[in-house]
Amino acid sequence: MHYGGDWNPEQWPEKTWGEDVRLMTEAGITLVRTGTHGWARTEPAPGAWDFGWLDRALDLLADAGVDVVLSTMTGGPPPWLLRRHPEAAPDGTACPSGPVRHTYATRLVEQLARRYGDHPAVALWHIGDVYGSGHGCARPCGCEACEEAFREWLRARYGSLDALNSAWTTAVRSQTYGAWEEVRLPGHAGSAGECAPDPARLLDRRRFTHDALLGCFLAEREVLRALTPEVPVTTGFLPLDGSVDQFGWARHQDVVALGPAAGSGEAAGTGGPLAAAAAFDAARGAGGGQPWMLLDHGPAEGPWPPGALRLRAWQAVAQGADAVLPAPWRQPRGGAGRFRAALVPHAGTASRMFTEARALGHELAAAPAELEGSRVSAVRAALVLDWPSRWALEQSPAAGLDAPGLLLRYHAPLLRSHVACDVVPPGRDLTGPGYRLVVVPHLHLLSVLDARRLAGYVRGGGHLLVGCCSGIVDESARLHGNGWAAPLRELLGVTVEEPWPLAEGVTVPVEGGPAGSGHGSAWAEVLTLDGAEAVARFTGGPAAGGPAVTRHSYGDGVAWYVATRLDAGALERLLGAACARAGAEPVLPGLPREVQAAERRAADGARFVLLLNHGARQARCRLPQPMRDVLTPGRDADAPVYQVTLPPGGVAVLSAAPPGA
Amino acid sequence: MHYGGDWNPEQWPEKTWGEDVRLMTEAGITLVRTGTHGWARTEPAPGAWDFGWLDRALDLLADAGVDVVLSTMTGGPPPWLLRRHPEAAPDGTACPSGPVRHTYATRLVEQLARRYGDHPAVALWHIGDVYGSGHGCARPCGCEACEEAFREWLRARYGSLDALNSAWTTAVRSQTYGAWEEVRLPGHAGSAGECAPDPARLLDRRRFTHDALLGCFLAEREVLRALTPEVPVTTGFLPLDGSVDQFGWARHQDVVALGPAAGSGEAAGTGGPLAAAAAFDAARGAGGGQPWMLLDHGPAEGPWPPGALRLRAWQAVAQGADAVLPAPWRQPRGGAGRFRAALVPHAGTASRMFTEARALGHELAAAPAELEGSRVSAVRAALVLDWPSRWALEQSPAAGLDAPGLLLRYHAPLLRSHVACDVVPPGRDLTGPGYRLVVVPHLHLLSVLDARRLAGYVRGGGHLLVGCCSGIVDESARLHGNGWAAPLRELLGVTVEEPWPLAEGVTVPVEGGPAGSGHGSAWAEVLTLDGAEAVARFTGGPAAGGPAVTRHSYGDGVAWYVATRLDAGALERLLGAACARAGAEPVLPGLPREVQAAERRAADGARFVLLLNHGARQARCRLPQPMRDVLTPGRDADAPVYQVTLPPGGVAVLSAAPPGA
Amino acid sequence: MHYGGDWNPEQWPEKTWGEDVRLMTEAGITLVRTGTHGWARTEPAPGAWDFGWLDRALDLLADAGVDVVLSTMTGGPPPWLLRRHPEAAPDGTACPSGPVRHTYATRLVEQLARRYGDHPAVALWHIGDVYGSGHGCARPCGCEACEEAFREWLRARYGSLDALNSAWTTAVRSQTYGAWEEVRLPGHAGSAGECAPDPARLLDRRRFTHDALLGCFLAEREVLRALTPEVPVTTGFLPLDGSVDQFGWARHQDVVALGPAAGSGEAAGTGGPLAAAAAFDAARGAGGGQPWMLLDHGPAEGPWPPGALRLRAWQAVAQGADAVLPAPWRQPRGGAGRFRAALVPHAGTASRMFTEARALGHELAAAPAELEGSRVSAVRAALVLDWPSRWALEQSPAAGLDAPGLLLRYHAPLLRSHVACDVVPPGRDLTGPGYRLVVVPHLHLLSVLDARRLAGYVRGGGHLLVGCCSGIVDESARLHGNGWAAPLRELLGVTVEEPWPLAEGVTVPVEGGPAGSGHGSAWAEVLTLDGAEAVARFTGGPAAGGPAVTRHSYGDGVAWYVATRLDAGALERLLGAACARAGAEPVLPGLPREVQAAERRAADGARFVLLLNHGARQARCRLPQPMRDVLTPGRDADAPVYQVTLPPGGVAVLSAAPPGA
Repeated sequence: MHYGGDWNPEQWPEKTWGEDVRLMTEAGITLVRTGTHGWARTEPAPGAWDFGWLDRALDLLADAGVDVVLSTMTGGPPPWLLRRHPEAAPDGTACPSGPVRHTYATRLVEQLARRYGDHPAVALWHIGDVYGSGHGCARPCGCEACEEAFREWLRARYGSLDALNSAWTTAVRSQTYGAWEEVRLPGHAGSAGECAPDPARLLDRRRFTHDALLGCFLAEREVLRALTPEVPVTTGFLPLDGSVDQFGWARHQDVVALGPAAGSGEAAGTGGPLAAAAAFDAARGAGGGQPWMLLDHGPAEGPWPPGALRLRAWQAVAQGADAVLPAPWRQPRGGAGRFRAALVPHAGTASRMFTEARALGHELAAAPAELEGSRVSAVRAALVLDWPSRWALEQSPAAGLDAPGLLLRYHAPLLRSHVACDVVPPGRDLTGPGYRLVVVPHLHLLSVLDARRLAGYVRGGGHLLVGCCSGIVDESARLHGNGWAAPLRELLGVTVEEPWPLAEGVTVPVEGGPAGSGHGSAWAEVLTLDGAEAVARFTGGPAAGGPAVTRHSYGDGVAWYVATRLDAGALERLLGAACARAGAEPVLPGLPREVQAAERRAADGARFVLLLNHGARQARCRLPQPMRDVLTPGRDADAPVYQVTLPPGGVAVLSAAPPGA
Repeated sequence: MHYGGDWNPEQWPEKTWGEDVRLMTEAGITLVRTGTHGWARTEPAPGAWDFGWLDRALDLLADAGVDVVLSTMTGGPPPWLLRRHPEAAPDGTACPSGPVRHTYATRLVEQLARRYGDHPAVALWHIGDVYGSGHGCARPCGCEACEEAFREWLRARYGSLDALNSAWTTAVRSQTYGAWEEVRLPGHAGSAGECAPDPARLLDRRRFTHDALLGCFLAEREVLRALTPEVPVTTGFLPLDGSVDQFGWARHQDVVALGPAAGSGEAAGTGGPLAAAAAFDAARGAGGGQPWMLLDHGPAEGPWPPGALRLRAWQAVAQGADAVLPAPWRQPRGGAGRFRAALVPHAGTASRMFTEARALGHELAAAPAELEGSRVSAVRAALVLDWPSRWALEQSPAAGLDAPGLLLRYHAPLLRSHVACDVVPPGRDLTGPGYRLVVVPHLHLLSVLDARRLAGYVRGGGHLLVGCCSGIVDESARLHGNGWAAPLRELLGVTVEEPWPLAEGVTVPVEGGPAGSGHGSAWAEVLTLDGAEAVARFTGGPAAGGPAVTRHSYGDGVAWYVATRLDAGALERLLGAACARAGAEPVLPGLPREVQAAERRAADGARFVLLLNHGARQARCRLPQPMRDVLTPGRDADAPVYQVTLPPGGVAVLSAAPPGA
Repeated sequence: MHYGGDWNPEQWPEKTWGEDVRLMTEAGITLVRTGTHGWARTEPAPGAWDFGWLDRALDLLADAGVDVVLSTMTGGPPPWLLRRHPEAAPDGTACPSGPVRHTYATRLVEQLARRYGDHPAVALWHIGDVYGSGHGCARPCGCEACEEAFREWLRARYGSLDALNSAWTTAVRSQTYGAWEEVRLPGHAGSAGECAPDPARLLDRRRFTHDALLGCFLAEREVLRALTPEVPVTTGFLPLDGSVDQFGWARHQDVVALGPAAGSGEAAGTGGPLAAAAAFDAARGAGGGQPWMLLDHGPAEGPWPPGALRLRAWQAVAQGADAVLPAPWRQPRGGAGRFRAALVPHAGTASRMFTEARALGHELAAAPAELEGSRVSAVRAALVLDWPSRWALEQSPAAGLDAPGLLLRYHAPLLRSHVACDVVPPGRDLTGPGYRLVVVPHLHLLSVLDARRLAGYVRGGGHLLVGCCSGIVDESARLHGNGWAAPLRELLGVTVEEPWPLAEGVTVPVEGGPAGSGHGSAWAEVLTLDGAEAVARFTGGPAAGGPAVTRHSYGDGVAWYVATRLDAGALERLLGAACARAGAEPVLPGLPREVQAAERRAADGARFVLLLNHGARQARCRLPQPMRDVLTPGRDADAPVYQVTLPPGGVAVLSAAPPGA
């Protein structure tokens, strides 16, 4: 396991660097990210290069055996660049389209690649800082260059104006385009259409902005691939952040890195263990199951609570991380991040924080070597998430249905029942990995092709549970023809007659089936049954008397449908029943609710079980077979363990005999 | 009764039009609005005309006997216009002042008038789409052209700078103008005055913006009047929308049309039957009692609840409408309105919605022919509403008093006690129509002339009930000289000593008289009696011990005054007492509270009583005299009806024998 | 005692002036502010002067014996100035940096000084209107001129770019400046740094904006000092307003004037007697204990409640004011201030308001002459307040700690226990005035020098009580080196290990010592004791088990520390104990809680005790020694008074025998 933090030597007098590196060694640090905010230091004036400081810093690390994730530094352009090129940040927003960023950024990256590509300390390139909500001010740029780029992007996507007019259904608001020049970024022209902009146009702005950011990334990657093909490449994702399609983006990275947990835009609410678990599963899903790294995580302001650093680090490992860089190395004296938790806090090295950081380093170093490189296994369920569908949902009347919220709602019950799950895009193969249950919290935007993929999975014997408001619009945010949710009708065995958005605070009662007594909110649908059976019914609201939960035998499998946003308790009961029927079994049976369980399996078949207690009370876990404790210092390495007792925040790593042992 | 919806053929393949028209015939559709979003299709490039599609669409309708409200299409300019003339929408706001809109719009209108003025299907012109909050983004434009137009408008209104300086009391903030060029639209210069802009200047900006919008309308109307003098003209109002003075504007229309009920700006809260009732009475009042039309009404997102379409349609008829086009004809696949209720919903023609729409068409077709053209009668009360007073109120400290809210507060008790009322402007003749009670919920801005009109009405024997905060400012938002509410002092027999704005959540107890025990909020006044008697008193708050409700015998009439915003219960009791004393009798006596009652009388004396049950329970209505049921299919047309039992949402149309029958 | 209001003759026909002045005489008015909004009248066009109206107005006042605070009129530039120089108000914000304001303003001031410097009525110059939140729109201007001025200001403050880069720790976010031209006002460039701007840069923008406003003031003062050296100078402060450092600014004034109490920006919440008391003590503190004046105070909208004008006026006197101009003279008919309380309200001179205003005038006139010029005495405590620290706190994670709120939290208990206190800046001498207890509600920004000053005070025997989150950052908003709150460590005998911001609504229980059972919120610190003893401990939250309140014997004094924001009850108990131990005695012992007590002592030794009942019930005050009632009309002037009974809102002024009498 790699372990470390963000080291920013440019913030500190050079005479303190040696002490920093010595402390790293003491704390078991093996990997640091460096250079993130180094552009101004490295290129203090256009084309004037100063690499000496970085040479010395990297040499120090190399001598101490600490590896480096070297940043391309392009996340933070220096003041001279913006002064020289105000068009690089019109209206205070970093512009991804103009030539400036590409010119200066790629020139810098070339310098870095040539100089450090074969430096012994450099293990990985980190491009930029964080894209998406953390990039610039998150507002999309709307300058003329972006408008031009938007038109180019549309031309490439649609080929002809006719196709664009059709996809955007421009006829609906007298917005039919007669020439490409007439197309503007939303928010810029002043027609009536700007008050209620076309959903398809807004969706394409989201896509375009995303692709423009990706273009910045790819321009740098191209330089690195050419000059240092052997050094892998990454960049930072914000947990479940809305602006970057992590599934699409990750295809261009060698390693997925998950960045700040809290305080940065949409990520602010993702601080608890349940939210982290969903984001971690999505990070693993983005990388197709490969090991990933946790980067610059933790509270935005104020310390890590006692024990929390260790628990979060092991949670990342349990969910597939092989590198944990959970915090800045040292709290800076100035800047907006002064109060952010760091491994070496302002209070110094005698502090509780550094004591915990050091202990964690020693613990990770003592963990079994086979854990590194092993893969998360015993996964029985998958949750389907889709960024374009999230973007489309923003333009729908389903104000109460937000994609990350829904994902957490469906993910948490699986976590609590210890059913391991992958978070994957709708285009991912669902049959191969042996999923027993696939959960679609909702896919407001669903292509006919992806709907067929879901149907194929069920036909082949899979179990599927679909949440309301799915399959409503196509890739252009248009209603599917032939009625609501038409692409899912045959699969689900129901017809959606009327979708009802519910105002905030309105609930509708639901009764029956494994969900028991519960209620829905945000959205409710009037259904008619076309083959499915009603498992629960609405007993009030606009769909009163109609089915609320249905089940449909389809091919060799089963398709459930939930026609509202169920309350957490009812949803947990329902998912429990669906798991049971599907044979989606927990990692270990009979564990306490607050314990997270995971399994990782090495290439040689070695199998590790990780148990984490997120609860506030001691948790006793009986093991279904004797295992060996491979974490506790001073343990008898060969003694069989039949039961583990975890204090609050406690972690256990157990070795289970490989099948043939 | 005309019945229909918005048909937008340009959104659909031409091959589907025939089916649409066939379905219209099946559903009893007799009138559709067409062309609203047709500009881009009709003029795909500047001056390049394409009328073929519309020729064919109108011919189809004419062949099927469906009449057309033909839009002038100018509500939504095509993309090429805004690309060519960015000044038509500076800052994303449609500019009403520049020459562009007038040039292009009138050119289009001329083409339409010449081509379709005598088309057999065309029954009515609809100018633009919706003015006011629904026009552009509702923010007033502040471009240089508007500034220049503002100065011209002021010059015309005030004649001289001295008059302007006096009206705006510019001396108060060192804002005395020495030249017309110094006058700016509020929000554009940076003096201290911009932080706390002069109320008079803000009021005149409201007036100017209104008149500029009206100018757009009038420019089109002028073309139509010249070329097609025989075709009447309308445009759409939003229910009680704040930005368009419906009373002033309606003078320039042949028919009043009331547009979207919910989701568009200020109209969002006007969805319930009480709010609709107030807006419908105001629409009838705007047209001076003439029949009006309901247009493009209904929920912004999601379906009409079961039965609601029928109930709302008949409510419009009960309150004087002769044409009901309550929804778009067909839900579009794209655009912001994809989820809006339509007669043919996305779920198709087998749906509940289309079934209800068709049934309503047949019902309206079977209604007595004399109902069309008849006028609302048995009106015993009037409520006075004034748009400039609403605008002035926005600049007052009476944050808790908003004009539409107050109107509903005073209108609902009359509706519930079945006293029919008109909603009229303060300049309307109050003596002629035989009103027994005139209610002035508040007229913060009240001219001395209008105050005299009220006094004249009371002197002649009328009863008047005035709400607090009335008569405070003059036409220029200045305090009237000679003390608070001076123009009403003699009429009301009270002097307002101190007006107290109350913070949100603060209430003051009120006791005594027909109002019983209640409380006031938002505003309370310290009064001294100058002839009036105290009917109720404040028992707490800043006016504790002083009169809260007063009554004054003035001439042959009676003037009530309410010195606070009374809670709904107390106000209902008070209005009940005022009606009783005034002899303002209900349409029918003894009806249940949740039933709405109205009478329409035809030119030949035929009298119809309409009863609508807005409640959730069955309502039994005993009739004071036998009537005849003219709505229920299969009824015995001559059987006398002594009692009507209405299910929830139920409607009855009864024929009462004319006086001489 | 001077008494009066704001008289704005330019708002009224000249024929009414005589009546106004007659009413002033009748009401005992001795001092009015005039000219505040007179610029447009005086200079209707550039360089065209009209002084006749002001000549006549001032002569009228002089003839009636009413003195004048003459405004320099520059608070409200006339429309022609902004039309001619749009750059004076870019983006609607008054620009303090451009040459325009200085040019035109100083030219006007020169005219006024030459013409009225020796007018018999003119007693005082009032420069501008209100600076800070009331000046322009409070948003700081960001025009190119201001940017240039900002760089000049930085150059003067830091000398070199290296010093600036160090102070701002620019290396932290790749913001190192290579040239002065690269430095921008925050909010203007578009780098990542603009999303999370550097706290030091934001702090310096606050300082710069402040100094730019001060520069406007000083430019005018310079003209006045040169031409009318004998006329003292003032300007208006908003109570505890955040944007003007009243301590720094007051050094440039001859008299401190405290302006509007409510409704103007940050002052809005300062309406109650507790808030007024804190603001009044700060106004006195700003003037170094000299008499100050109350100006244009009172409710923003709506009347003064009965008795409130008198009570507030005497409260000002009790806290050191010698001039009370608590309201506009007359309510204007127009403008945004139409509804603001005035001495002559819209209801006229027979009104309750004018009756009260006149009675107050007579009462103040009859008060003992020695009261004027006397100083507030018997002050036993001081509260330390610092504007730069307030500004730095805005950039901290301590969202729940706002400086005025904390000040009130600590000030109110002292007021309620009748311990008189000064509000002073951290640089003020604490040893000289004989303070027994110095309270530091918090000084987030604390220089090492000021920390030493506090230590010196305690070493010399003083008692000190410091609130949490103090001493965290230095003058550049950087964390102090060597750990949290390092400059206070030795003095307080504690080390702050971890500062924890608490989310809104989170509380942590505190138990023990004089504070008893209570709770903290907003902020909590983990402390270790380095010599101090724990007086109370946290029994929950992130610092559970650790000290919450500590006490440390240091030199000859005692230093308390409170590691959280204590609830009001616990804080009151704690402060009571700290006062008792320190010997900080009340003005009079045994008074009811709701009574405010103050002492003023004249140069000749005459001693007055003022008692004010802010409660809703009668309050009985036993005097420790017989005194004489010098306020009640018809009193026996020599009768000894042993006890005073105050009705709600009641005021007593008592003469205590001087030491040698």
